[in-house]
Amino acid sequence: MSTTDKVLARADATFDAAQARWIDWLRIPSISAQPDHAGDCRAAAEFACKELAALGFDASVRDTAGHPVVVAHHPGPGTGPHLLYYGHYDVQPADPIELWKYPPFEPTLVDGPHGKRVYARGAVDDKGQVQMWLAAFRAWFEETGTMPCRISVLIEGEEETGSVNFKPFVAANAAELKADIVVISDTGMWDVDTPAISTSLRGMVYMQVELKAASRDLHSGMYGGSALNPINALTVALGQLKNAEGRVMVPGYYDGVRDISTRQSNQWSALGFSEEKYLGDIGLTTPYGEAGRGALERLWARPTCDICGIWGGYSGPGTKTVIPSEAGAKVSFRLVPGQDPQKVVENFKAFMLARVPKDAKLTFTVLGAGEGLEIPTDSPFVQAASAALEEEYGKAAVMAGCGGSIPVVETFQKALGLDSLLIGFGLDDDQVHSPNEKFEVTCFRHGLRSHARLLGKLAGR
Amino acid sequence: MSTTDKVLARADATFDAAQARWIDWLRIPSISAQPDHAGDCRAAAEFACKELAALGFDASVRDTAGHPVVVAHHPGPGTGPHLLYYGHYDVQPADPIELWKYPPFEPTLVDGPHGKRVYARGAVDDKGQVQMWLAAFRAWFEETGTMPCRISVLIEGEEETGSVNFKPFVAANAAELKADIVVISDTGMWDVDTPAISTSLRGMVYMQVELKAASRDLHSGMYGGSALNPINALTVALGQLKNAEGRVMVPGYYDGVRDISTRQSNQWSALGFSEEKYLGDIGLTTPYGEAGRGALERLWARPTCDICGIWGGYSGPGTKTVIPSEAGAKVSFRLVPGQDPQKVVENFKAFMLARVPKDAKLTFTVLGAGEGLEIPTDSPFVQAASAALEEEYGKAAVMAGCGGSIPVVETFQKALGLDSLLIGFGLDDDQVHSPNEKFEVTCFRHGLRSHARLLGKLAGR
Repeated sequence: MSTTDKVLARADATFDAAQARWIDWLRIPSISAQPDHAGDCRAAAEFACKELAALGFDASVRDTAGHPVVVAHHPGPGTGPHLLYYGHYDVQPADPIELWKYPPFEPTLVDGPHGKRVYARGAVDDKGQVQMWLAAFRAWFEETGTMPCRISVLIEGEEETGSVNFKPFVAANAAELKADIVVISDTGMWDVDTPAISTSLRGMVYMQVELKAASRDLHSGMYGGSALNPINALTVALGQLKNAEGRVMVPGYYDGVRDISTRQSNQWSALGFSEEKYLGDIGLTTPYGEAGRGALERLWARPTCDICGIWGGYSGPGTKTVIPSEAGAKVSFRLVPGQDPQKVVENFKAFMLARVPKDAKLTFTVLGAGEGLEIPTDSPFVQAASAALEEEYGKAAVMAGCGGSIPVVETFQKALGLDSLLIGFGLDDDQVHSPNEKFEVTCFRHGLRSHARLLGKLAGR
Repeated sequence: MSTTDKVLARADATFDAAQARWIDWLRIPSISAQPDHAGDCRAAAEFACKELAALGFDASVRDTAGHPVVVAHHPGPGTGPHLLYYGHYDVQPADPIELWKYPPFEPTLVDGPHGKRVYARGAVDDKGQVQMWLAAFRAWFEETGTMPCRISVLIEGEEETGSVNFKPFVAANAAELKADIVVISDTGMWDVDTPAISTSLRGMVYMQVELKAASRDLHSGMYGGSALNPINALTVALGQLKNAEGRVMVPGYYDGVRDISTRQSNQWSALGFSEEKYLGDIGLTTPYGEAGRGALERLWARPTCDICGIWGGYSGPGTKTVIPSEAGAKVSFRLVPGQDPQKVVENFKAFMLARVPKDAKLTFTVLGAGEGLEIPTDSPFVQAASAALEEEYGKAAVMAGCGGSIPVVETFQKALGLDSLLIGFGLDDDQVHSPNEKFEVTCFRHGLRSHARLLGKLAGR
């Protein structure tokens, strides 16, 4: 029996304790976007720090200008690669809270088609996925008394708000954080039986735009027909963001975007992805992306534009005959490798400025700007992960694109010169960022075991 | 000396008492929107009822499901027209109370550029204007022992909350309330020296539209490029409501809209209205209405379309990368005489349905639908009012439009078949519905005298 096999047996024998730690962590409402949860964010960081310290790590909670970062180091046996595990303890807001079947911060175990699942905000994103590799560390520690190779850990608390303070933290601590590869579990599987490694990531520009008109709210009877209405003006401009073929109309938006290779196109076609089912599961029938592109190409290899929020005027019951003084929106652009986020920011500003009337005063806030990334599939780390996943699942991992962005991947590349290995265990119906977020216990278990195997592969044990 | 001249002399001699009654009525905080002021509303009704009874009216306070209505009848001398005076004793809430220079329910006489003025909630809207015609009745009563013609009175207590119980009250008592014309003082003058009669009122259609897409909120990274975004879809449709020339693009929207006459156009041009100043006061420089139309024409005689509220997705601090499941808006259309509100409702629905993609499920709620109204300027009542005002002010009354709507005018037309004569004495800076509401004593005095003259004209005395 190999050491890895013993570690896997240990992981199985102690699985209930791993699940309990995961659930305990989920009870802490560490919502990074909401200032009144700052204390909860710190509590979530301390929870993870304590866990790492118990496994022999030199672990600490480090302050930043925002939420703190958990940093931990374990020297291992002095051989093998140096791995830097990254995750985040912060979660999205739980709004709209009334749509949750179970309280978002009272994790609830419920039967589902794949066995038990846990409902909670952060169940999968990213507390659940972090707890998988923490549990894999623990199985190695309990079985062997140490880590199988040198390991550093970074768990931040601002991933859901753009890692504003985390990025400079990484840059400022580059010497301490240098390793051979970053390991991240914050992505998904192909399906519950098929693991995936994400080898391309969309980047993102996230902008807030506010449009101010009159110096005060106006009566629509007294001023309608004379005064600029900021909601009307905003809809005119935002309504032109895409044309009827789903193409984003911001000037220069597709500069640098490359078509996918025939080989990639063939591999993705062979997956037999049913966009009909994908959309049918969420009550839709028709894709609303760029015309003439394949479904996975649109999701993984084409840039998009979505308005994520809009507000202005009166939204209460009944009527208020008001022309408000301002209106605003949040707009996200998912970018692919080759697009320059700064150019997208500037071109979006120009697009809006060209489409609003003279009295409209526009304010722009850049809430995020990261480029799309490609990870080389021939690296030894990707190869080791492929082998570990294939052994765990009995089938090959899909080399997938990732529609979302993980901006820190760019940070690690820029600040530390490190590639990232992205192996994630979420499912498409996990309701990430939505009410009723959940994570399958079977995904958690196989994810834990896959991480234990990966450590064995990389350490040659 | 005509009877009217004697009545005017009487009104002048007893002016202090009229002002005192006005001020006493203002002390009662009859805020209809606030349940804890229900007793004050009833006290304000009883105050007016007592006043009318003292003038020989058969007066009573009638209960409704909400605040009571004052109803009073005087048979007059048995000749002349039958006039129905309408007003309201209820007032807007005084919030934000900290912005008042004087306590809102302790009426305060202060010197201003036009002489004394009274600061109080309801100073003009509508207690001050009601007390003008009550004082005119009193002058006629004290001078002649009776009313100059047959008069009925309706003073309601829910005008500021939508006349929810008053409208059915009028319909249920139609036989009792039948008259020849309704007389209302709840509008404004052109300026302190120039009286006005409002001869057109814009109507309104107020719609709520909600657009539902996916069955739940989605992650914009996982679904962007495939799933319908309801905010994007809503802005596409709403952004087309007006074209670049400010014309509303709802099909058939201008059906029935008549151009103003050259005479009206000339009269309005001659008023020297400065739209530059009007907009400058609220921080704007450029009119955003229909191109090629005069400023007063746009405000008084052209229909408009304003989005009064919009919502969808995330509007909190920072970012949330969500494609929400729904978005919505409130849209108001100010209508002019000739437009059919029901057709506007149906055409707006068709406009939206034609502009959203297949998976967008639209829900419409009609929150208001009233037509624009025109009061014929050649009616004997408008002619009599014009003559009365010209004699009082030494200059012709402006035949003005009113950008807002006065919903009870439509009620009187529908339930009683009666036109309304709208002669009001408020000024633009009276701060109606705002802190520091005031009414000029000179406006009150000339308004009182104008009403006394109007009664004389209509009674041929």
